[in-house]
Amino acid sequence: MNKGDLYTCSFNVSPDIYEGFISVFKDKNPLHTNESFAVNKGFKEKVMHGNILNGFLSYFIGECLPVKDVLIQTQEIKFMKPVYLNDNLILHAEIEEVHESVNTIEFKYFFENRHQVKVARGTIQIGLLK
Amino acid sequence: MNKGDLYTCSFNVSPDIYEGFISVFKDKNPLHTNESFAVNKGFKEKVMHGNILNGFLSYFIGECLPVKDVLIQTQEIKFMKPVYLNDNLILHAEIEEVHESVNTIEFKYFFENRHQVKVARGTIQIGLLK
Repeated sequence: MNKGDLYTCSFNVSPDIYEGFISVFKDKNPLHTNESFAVNKGFKEKVMHGNILNGFLSYFIGECLPVKDVLIQTQEIKFMKPVYLNDNLILHAEIEEVHESVNTIEFKYFFENRHQVKVARGTIQIGLLK
Repeated sequence: MNKGDLYTCSFNVSPDIYEGFISVFKDKNPLHTNESFAVNKGFKEKVMHGNILNGFLSYFIGECLPVKDVLIQTQEIKFMKPVYLNDNLILHAEIEEVHESVNTIEFKYFFENRHQVKVARGTIQIGLLK
């Protein structure tokens, strides 16, 4: 794994994921569950929980890298545009730095939707386990 | 909601939450699912997904504040110590800044376990919806 390496990973914010997230974490805030509340606030429809994207990042780090001996150390996300039910998102991640002395790798990433709108971006630092 | 306001919220990393997270997000990295792999890497037992804590933050912002008209704008987390199955975590959050001109509030927070060990800390910025 080297600086500049690019990864892409596709995710669908399916009803199973949306309902599963609520079932696990119990966040039923009306923005996420009440269509008319969300529309009154200026959104197209109810807005998906931002932390669904953090769950996708867990999958990316845990399952999509060429090594399994990894652990997330820090994670940042900036939510830029709303994500709606059934949105298809593509995660684009790039290795920004490799610190061999301390066995860490820094990624920057963004998620974009099918309209090529960036809905979120951020950084993740992982440690390589010995 | 004012600068210096403190909130605490208690969470249990129950089997339902752990298994539900895997069911929703499909991150079966061996560190999280294979006891002997985790022990070989120096951990006490299999390590919980860090993004379970981000799900708890979703609940905190969506359900535990005195207002519901909120949206997470940015979120950062630093994982400091491993979290294990059935750990009881207390989230301590404090309002660090209120920016009335742009209707945003910044929190700093940490999670500690029953041994008063801080397992993670970070910041969250939310927007207040009009």
